[in-house]
Amino acid sequence: MATRVLKFGGTSVGSLERIRASAAIAAAERRRGEDVAVVVSAMAGETDRLLTLAAGLGFDLGDAETDVVISAGEQISAALMAMAIRLEGLHSQSFLGWQAGIRTDGPPGAARINGLDADPIRKSMETGYVPVMAGFQGASADGRVRTLGRGGTDLSAVALAAALNASCDIYTDVDGVFTTDPRIEPKARRIQKISYDEMLELAAQGAKVLQTRSAEFAKARNVPLRVLSSFAEPGQSEGTTIMRAEDIAERRIVSGIAYARDQARVALRGVSQTPEAAANVFSGLADADIGVDMIVQSPASEAGRANLEFTVDRRDLKNALARIGESDARDVLSETGLAKVSVVGLGLNRRADVARILYRALANENIAVRTVATSEIKISVLIENDAVEHAVRALHAAYGLDDAS
Amino acid sequence: MATRVLKFGGTSVGSLERIRASAAIAAAERRRGEDVAVVVSAMAGETDRLLTLAAGLGFDLGDAETDVVISAGEQISAALMAMAIRLEGLHSQSFLGWQAGIRTDGPPGAARINGLDADPIRKSMETGYVPVMAGFQGASADGRVRTLGRGGTDLSAVALAAALNASCDIYTDVDGVFTTDPRIEPKARRIQKISYDEMLELAAQGAKVLQTRSAEFAKARNVPLRVLSSFAEPGQSEGTTIMRAEDIAERRIVSGIAYARDQARVALRGVSQTPEAAANVFSGLADADIGVDMIVQSPASEAGRANLEFTVDRRDLKNALARIGESDARDVLSETGLAKVSVVGLGLNRRADVARILYRALANENIAVRTVATSEIKISVLIENDAVEHAVRALHAAYGLDDAS
Repeated sequence: MATRVLKFGGTSVGSLERIRASAAIAAAERRRGEDVAVVVSAMAGETDRLLTLAAGLGFDLGDAETDVVISAGEQISAALMAMAIRLEGLHSQSFLGWQAGIRTDGPPGAARINGLDADPIRKSMETGYVPVMAGFQGASADGRVRTLGRGGTDLSAVALAAALNASCDIYTDVDGVFTTDPRIEPKARRIQKISYDEMLELAAQGAKVLQTRSAEFAKARNVPLRVLSSFAEPGQSEGTTIMRAEDIAERRIVSGIAYARDQARVALRGVSQTPEAAANVFSGLADADIGVDMIVQSPASEAGRANLEFTVDRRDLKNALARIGESDARDVLSETGLAKVSVVGLGLNRRADVARILYRALANENIAVRTVATSEIKISVLIENDAVEHAVRALHAAYGLDDAS
Repeated sequence: MATRVLKFGGTSVGSLERIRASAAIAAAERRRGEDVAVVVSAMAGETDRLLTLAAGLGFDLGDAETDVVISAGEQISAALMAMAIRLEGLHSQSFLGWQAGIRTDGPPGAARINGLDADPIRKSMETGYVPVMAGFQGASADGRVRTLGRGGTDLSAVALAAALNASCDIYTDVDGVFTTDPRIEPKARRIQKISYDEMLELAAQGAKVLQTRSAEFAKARNVPLRVLSSFAEPGQSEGTTIMRAEDIAERRIVSGIAYARDQARVALRGVSQTPEAAANVFSGLADADIGVDMIVQSPASEAGRANLEFTVDRRDLKNALARIGESDARDVLSETGLAKVSVVGLGLNRRADVARILYRALANENIAVRTVATSEIKISVLIENDAVEHAVRALHAAYGLDDAS
């Protein structure tokens, strides 16, 4: 029998009503004859409420006891979901991380799954149950509760699907992955099929529908992934299927436009032009778990020296500046109020006119480009925060995404 | 080194401020040189909030998933308490029921502790930590979360103390056990020393400071018990010590007056006068976990038949009447709006004038007595709900409890 892991995010379990609606979806899938396991996030707002309690004593994400506090959120929603599935006339049972055999290593608040004994969940399904696993949590080798970091429930779901050789459906409050944020561009369309790599880039560049680590995990383990809406009637959400590029028959040059507001640009002037100098800068940032993007290196006017610049999230700027204090840069500058807009598509590297389209579209809107960075399947531009909406709409049109597919 | 288990109830961890105050008490005890383990209830109101969530899906206490939901309450407070103890400059670590080796059997919502592997908690103390255990919870043999029923955190604390060969301090929002409820009788005084048996009767008859099962457990395992206030400065609460009767040098005839409002009286007229007939009635009630008190049996006018009456909590009446539907009673009557007032004291059975004092005190106040039931160390009277306050005050005075000791 085919097995399907259904993940329901915070808004999909945000109230008892939403939990019942999501349970109806799970029950419908089960009745179609597939084995079904469910993975849930905490009820929307609950993790923040619990983090506020811990913060009131001065403890943040990253402390072992904070993990014990916030993991209660998924514990509650998992048990409520199991109840709601029983109301659908099925057998159901909740599993906390330790009960589901999710073993982790790594620090509290950002643990990694390093093992998953799928037997408890598998046995539950074999005895006719719909198991409901609390996402976002596991237990360390010494039996302490650990959480997996932001978006960790997606990762729990994908890891469980991989262990069960199952497909994974991510239920959220939107009907799939869109060519861009429909709140900015009403012409945004749902993407029917997208490759793991494009999904990864969209997620990394700001699309919030799926977490980067889970897209990576799904790609590495070849887990068939769908993103669907739990707000549609059971079976009515078409969603987006995420698959290997070679399995997508009809590929578009560009799949989507992502954006991330509130970026900061850090510029180091006159760093020693040795591999160690740059490596030191970035290893300090990596140690502090600060995500870095749009790295540009160029020769400085002083011989043997280079200029190095990159972007970080605005919230990480202070921490980042502290970390690079020990570099031998002549000068360190930083700038805030910036945003990153990224064009993502498998065809980008094969098309000569991609850069031309980008610059022309932004020039037509009088949008100044600070920095450009490219990868195989992505071009990112750094612009003013205020220009985000114009830039997204201009690029959405310029790359032909406005047209009905 | 002596070991002390400190239990903090819901109001003692009802806010971050209260958690910090309770942590200061634990830290002060630790600094006095004793090994300290802490056991906590959920923050006041949290269990009800979680029960309301489960009830919203139609699930009550007694369902396995309800246990998963409500056990989150103690999980959160245990981790917050460990944080607060660390703010006192000590090492601390939380333990959930399954981590602390609390094994249970019995039904969800009312499980019994059938084993406690104290090693994790002991090792934590040996390595210099103050372990904080989530009360009210354990895990069944098949690894499911179970809760211990109302007041279960007292039981967790006493069981842990027994396993550690420790004494147990129950911290609450009052400075010990009182001769009666000070809200009714301002002359109520703190009892300095009381026997396990008296404490048990006071708890069973309505005094809410300690749960019956935990007093029984403490007596059976001879765990030295104190009831103290967490609202006093560290070391300033004198509290009540609960000990074996033979260790109390100066005993009073009467220790306290307890009361329970909203009782119901059930009368079965003309039950077959065979042992089986009465046994059937009570085994049906026991199966439904309905507490029965003040049982009185008397011959009926019809030969070979008896009248049987008893009290149950008002909330259990409907269920109780359903359970006794199969008895062969000629008639079943029930009456509500009643209250039980109980006089408890080790000296009651040795004093001939105890009954006289009781009847005279109530007669002086024109309080009609429905039923009287006595045990070795207790006399209970069933009266109108409205008469409770007068009765408590009259008996408090009549048995000499108004006088300063």
